[in-house]
Parts: sequence; C-alpha cells; structure tokens
Amino acid sequence: MTTYSEAGVNIEKGTETVKRIKKHVKSTFNENVLLDSGLFAGAIDLKKIKKMNNPVLLSSIDGVGTKTVIAEKMNKWDSIGQDLVNHSVNDILCHGGEPIAFLDYVASSSIKPEIIEEIVQGMTVACKENGVALIGGETAEMPDVYQENEIDLAGTILGIVEKEKLITGKNIKEKDVLIALPSNGLHTNGYSLARKVIEKTKISLKEQFVVEKEDLTIGGELLKIHKSYLKEVSFLLKKFELKGISHITGGGLIDNLPRIFPEGIGAKINPNKIKIPFIFEWIQENGVI
Amino acid sequence: MTTYSEAGVNIEKGTETVKRIKKHVKSTFNENVLLDSGLFAGAIDLKKIKKMNNPVLLSSIDGVGTKTVIAEKMNKWDSIGQDLVNHSVNDILCHGGEPIAFLDYVASSSIKPEIIEEIVQGMTVACKENGVALIGGETAEMPDVYQENEIDLAGTILGIVEKEKLITGKNIKEKDVLIALPSNGLHTNGYSLARKVIEKTKISLKEQFVVEKEDLTIGGELLKIHKSYLKEVSFLLKKFELKGISHITGGGLIDNLPRIFPEGIGAKINPNKIKIPFIFEWIQENGVI
Repeated sequence: MTTYSEAGVNIEKGTETVKRIKKHVKSTFNENVLLDSGLFAGAIDLKKIKKMNNPVLLSSIDGVGTKTVIAEKMNKWDSIGQDLVNHSVNDILCHGGEPIAFLDYVASSSIKPEIIEEIVQGMTVACKENGVALIGGETAEMPDVYQENEIDLAGTILGIVEKEKLITGKNIKEKDVLIALPSNGLHTNGYSLARKVIEKTKISLKEQFVVEKEDLTIGGELLKIHKSYLKEVSFLLKKFELKGISHITGGGLIDNLPRIFPEGIGAKINPNKIKIPFIFEWIQENGVI
Repeated sequence: MTTYSEAGVNIEKGTETVKRIKKHVKSTFNENVLLDSGLFAGAIDLKKIKKMNNPVLLSSIDGVGTKTVIAEKMNKWDSIGQDLVNHSVNDILCHGGEPIAFLDYVASSSIKPEIIEEIVQGMTVACKENGVALIGGETAEMPDVYQENEIDLAGTILGIVEKEKLITGKNIKEKDVLIALPSNGLHTNGYSLARKVIEKTKISLKEQFVVEKEDLTIGGELLKIHKSYLKEVSFLLKKFELKGISHITGGGLIDNLPRIFPEGIGAKINPNKIKIPFIFEWIQENGVI
C-alpha cells in the first residue's frame, strides 16, 4: 500500500494552508472581485474598462529568484511576497499599466502552512499598497523537485492602460533625457551571486555594519523590499510625456535600458553621479558584480 | 573574485534560451497582441471587450506538479507545456471563460536551452489549439532551490466572459443532472503518488502493457496530455444552460465537485458506470488511490 503521505504529499497541510491564507487574500478584495476564493479562477468585473476608449490588458509573470534562500536562512518570510508584487507592478508600469489584480504560485518540497501564510500575508500588504486584488493562487508540494526547506515564489500581475497611453519606447530620440529613480538594494536580482560571495567570505548574515550612522546587517540589506515605483511614476506620468520606462532588474542597466530603445539609440550615464546602495558596494568589494 | 557562472548562473544560456523560444512564442500572436516579446509585459488589445455588455476578466494560475519528473525520466519535454495550458484553459472554462492569453514560468537548477525550447514549443501547440496568445514568460535559473535536472513549470491563463454568462454553481438545485466528460489519464495530478508506486514496484517506465489491443507503456500513459475540454464545453454551453462546471484535478471528484455546490447539495455517482483509464487501475492494483 502506498499513500499520499508516504509519497511526501501532505493533503491535510494543504487544507490547513488554504484556511490560513483565506482571510489575508480576502482583505485585498474590492467591489470588482466577482468570484469567491476557492473556485477554479479569479474574476474581475471590467466595468471600468467600458469607460475607456481603447482598453489594453497588460500582464507579466515573474519570480523572486533565490532571494527565497536568504529568507530561509533568516527565517523571515514576510518580505518576499512584497518583493514579488512590487517587482511585477513595476514591470507593467514600464508600459504605463495601472495594476488591478495579482495571482501567486508558491512551490516547495514540503508545505509548511505557517511559512506560506507569512509569505501570502506579506504579498497582500503589497497588493493593498498597489491597489491590487489577489484573485488567485496555487500552492504546490513537490518532493523530488525542490531541495529541502527551499521555496520558489512566482506570480502574475494584471493591469490596464489606454491604448493611446501605452508606453513602448519607440518614440525615444537622441537628446532625450534619462531620469533615474533609486533602488534600495538588490531588489530581486543577483541573489545567486550575492549568496556565493557570502559563502566565500564566510560572513554571518547578522554581521553588523554602520553605514551613514545606521546599523545595518548583510541579511537585512539583502532582504530589503523591492520598491514599487507606482506612486513616483504615476506622478511623473501626469506631469510629463514619458516615452519609455525601463525596470532595472537582472542584467542591470546594460541589459535593461536597450530593451526599450529604438535601434541606434544609446544612453550616456555618469556612474559617479549614481549613489550606490551599500549592499552593491559590499558585494563589489568582496566579489565582483 | 566571484562571477555569475561560478555562482551557478549562466547568463549566455539565458540569452540562448530567449533566442530559441522567440519564434515559437511569436507563432501564437494574433492581431490583438500589441507589444513585442522581450519587453517588460505582454499586452492584449481589448477592443473585443468594448462590444461586450458587462465584460469579466477570468484568470487562474497553476503548475503541472511532479509530472515534470516523469518528463525528465522519459527525456520527453514536448507534452508538459501542453498539459499546463490545457489544465489552465479548463480552469477558467469552469466559469464560462473564453481563453485569450497565457504566461508561463519555467524554473530549474540549471537552464538547458534545448529543454526549455521543447517545453515552450509544446506550450505554443496547446496555445494555438485553444486560441490563446503566449504573451509573457519567465525562465529562472535557481541553483540551491531546485534539485539537479528537475524543472518546475507554472503558468497563468487569462480569459473573458460576459457577466451574465459567468458560471458559478450557485443556481445548482436538487435533481439537476450531472454530466461527466472523460479524462485520458492522470492529467496533471497525483504524480508524486504514482511515482512512489512505480518506485516500489520497480517497474520500468518503458514496460509494455496490452490494453484493449493497444500497446501501452506506463511512461507513455503517465505523460498523456491533460485534455482541454474547450471544444466540448463550448458546444454544451451553446445548447444548454450549464449551472456549474467542475474541473476534476487534485483531490478528485470528492474535493472538486463540492467546490461549486451550494450548501446542502451533493452528487450521486455510480462508480460502476465510470470507465476508468488503465493508468488509474494500474496504480490502484499496485498501490492505493
């Protein structure tokens, strides 16, 4: 006889997880959410779209990468869900998108309901900050695929924009001005490299540094929440015609700026004018970026 | 000095993967897809929705579970992408949704561009069959999170439905008739259990069985593609008022039927009238469902 629990899949823990996260998920619901959680899909009433001239749906899927490994080592799970939502909000914002809904996917070798709850609860904090309803989610227990205690977290954002206001970068011309908004750290990229540097230097994640009179730890800096630029960019969009927006994630400035440039366009950046967050400097000093 | 490749992340392979999958992704594009692949989000022109009375957006996120482990053992990667898309199409179909777009997430300990291409190419086959544009995707290389050679595959479907035609199950009443559409096997659930039974019986995935004069292998049966019920259900929706639709996935009939039932409603099923696919019988004989 072989049972599900012998096969490493714990059905009760799945049910407990669903129970634990329900109230958090519901706290993100607004009057446009039509289906209750626990059905086969999430539903959003698009009545708002009926008033738009030429509505366009924007969507992006992403993960938080191995930032989950730092969360595991720090046993602090409330921030990576916020990272994921904010990262995703920024991605559709690059095209002028107003976020409306989010769906998450959490997978692990074994489900720990209290950890999933902490992740989802964090996610709902960011959902509410960005005006997003968490309309769907999946929790998967996959023994033999994931390493013990490790978790992967991915999700999809949905947003809308008027077709006339869709930002593509195609009108960017020579002599246009490049404006930068600062990050607060690694956001959700470069963690495999950062972890390797930490491993090599044998530094503790709790090691303290004093930077500009602030007490910091490496672990705390690594878990700093990926910023959502929704407020700043929404403000700029009202004041200016932004021709292109790039979200600087994996691959950095070098890979992400050209994604929105028309052929033949480049950017001139004075690196001395960029204030580098401490964690970048620390990695650079101890490894290489 | 620590570099990205020392940290187990191969940037060139990421770039090669993007190149390999681009043509497949583009083959799913229709006139409503507005942004090119490689930008920060996918975009769908919702002009169709302008003609609807009360448009509702439906969305669901899901994974294929440890069916990926069977794909890895059989070294056959073209079907799990189809599993994922079809599974997702069925999920929004439960609420009457017409699928319009899909986004995928593939993560692994190390990226193998040729395997990712095979998965995505399969995914685009199902996308085209279901009239869905593959508007977004993310490939993540996560050493230390995934076990060697293992892959996880998840994705999000987007669809639309008229609010008046949103199927919720809430009008289901006593004496309503339950219609079943057959599956062709395990679809995308129960694989951790199935694999445990295989491990215990020490059977080869290539072991042949003759069932109703057909030559079958265990591996072949396990990889049978999750059926999309889009055609059948669309036909039924035109002819009948379907009050509720349930997609029988993990948890089986016992867990999935009650998801759409109003309180106090149950279903009477005669198990002798259900034709059980061979693979279920084989698992039942050798383990327990």
